Amino acid sequence: MEVRLHGMWASPYVIRVIWALTLKGVEYEYIEEDLSNKSMAVLEYNPIYKKVPVLVHNGKPVIESAVILQYIEETWPDGTPLLPEDPYERAMARFWIDFGQQKSLTFFAFFLTSEEDKHKTAAQVLETLKILEEEALGDKKFFGGNTINMVDLFFGWLTYSFGCMEHISGVQVLLPKNLPRLHQWTLDFKQEPVIKENLPDSTALLEHFKRVTKHLKSSNKFNPA
Amino acid sequence: MEVRLHGMWASPYVIRVIWALTLKGVEYEYIEEDLSNKSMAVLEYNPIYKKVPVLVHNGKPVIESAVILQYIEETWPDGTPLLPEDPYERAMARFWIDFGQQKSLTFFAFFLTSEEDKHKTAAQVLETLKILEEEALGDKKFFGGNTINMVDLFFGWLTYSFGCMEHISGVQVLLPKNLPRLHQWTLDFKQEPVIKENLPDSTALLEHFKRVTKHLKSSNKFNPA
Repeated sequence: MEVRLHGMWASPYVIRVIWALTLKGVEYEYIEEDLSNKSMAVLEYNPIYKKVPVLVHNGKPVIESAVILQYIEETWPDGTPLLPEDPYERAMARFWIDFGQQKSLTFFAFFLTSEEDKHKTAAQVLETLKILEEEALGDKKFFGGNTINMVDLFFGWLTYSFGCMEHISGVQVLLPKNLPRLHQWTLDFKQEPVIKENLPDSTALLEHFKRVTKHLKSSNKFNPA
Repeated sequence: MEVRLHGMWASPYVIRVIWALTLKGVEYEYIEEDLSNKSMAVLEYNPIYKKVPVLVHNGKPVIESAVILQYIEETWPDGTPLLPEDPYERAMARFWIDFGQQKSLTFFAFFLTSEEDKHKTAAQVLETLKILEEEALGDKKFFGGNTINMVDLFFGWLTYSFGCMEHISGVQVLLPKNLPRLHQWTLDFKQEPVIKENLPDSTALLEHFKRVTKHLKSSNKFNPA
């Protein structure tokens, strides 16, 4: 098969790629990786980071989800466009994806915050989300306007993760009250057929995040400070 | 004037944009910013990060140097291409720029390392540079092949900064011995006319980095750990 995706079902980095390939109507073979015992393929294709997703197209690997999304857009330009046509609008889309990359630690810190820091962490998450709501989403239905684009796919994992974050951290973001437009976006995004049909199981996800959080906290592998 | 660039002469983020505009033959007005007293324009155009470079085109701001470079490529497609045509090669170029963004702290840590950590820091810098040499540059003259491209512009500030880094940290990277191909690249890159004519003054740069390092170390604003 010419397109293969090495992934892991609960990864926010992988699901973006699944959505993008599905939106483009690209057929692919999916290989679920055991992250505690990665396949030789992942280690060979991604020796620098040894992470998923790895997209393999005609035998050649593309890694890092933001890079893969642009590759998909340029390789399969037909079908749903993932970026606007106008260069300025494209720059804005790339800017928000870059913003999400720079702020990713903020979101992950939410899972791993300590009891004493949890309100400070929640305030930082809210501040970041407020920028997204006011500056990136504005009055639009989606980040992409009337239809979803690469920015929606990039932040899409948030739409089903707030519940987990709140449950694990014990802090309420109160999205409907604090960020009503962003909250409406999470509802609209999950109603899109391609997204709706490709969402992780919420119960399994919560159990997964609990396990990962416990493991990271006990091994001190993550220091959000 | 339709194109304006708000910059700061010693910034590695700004010089990439200057090189790209010059390679494309785009005329622009340059506004030097005092980073301790930024202009209202920078604060208004870049309220999120309040940083330079800010490229203003027809009154609209583009920020973040990697985003600006792609904007320049798409807005002025004629002239020297900054990205390859092939989607896979484009993905690779974007991957290496993303790698540089992820590793930027490693390079800045080199300036700010403590006496006890300096050899560990130097080893990390060398390890990162080795990946660049072996995986990204390989046997090519430039990251872009026979001609420079966006990846060369992105990493180009390194070509004139090793001397400063070594002087300030007291650690030798010994580029010619340890990384001969990357060393040759630094020489070739600086010989390109557009680059040669747009390099910061090395004496002024060293003084500048000394001041910044002293300021950051004393204010504890930077913790490379």
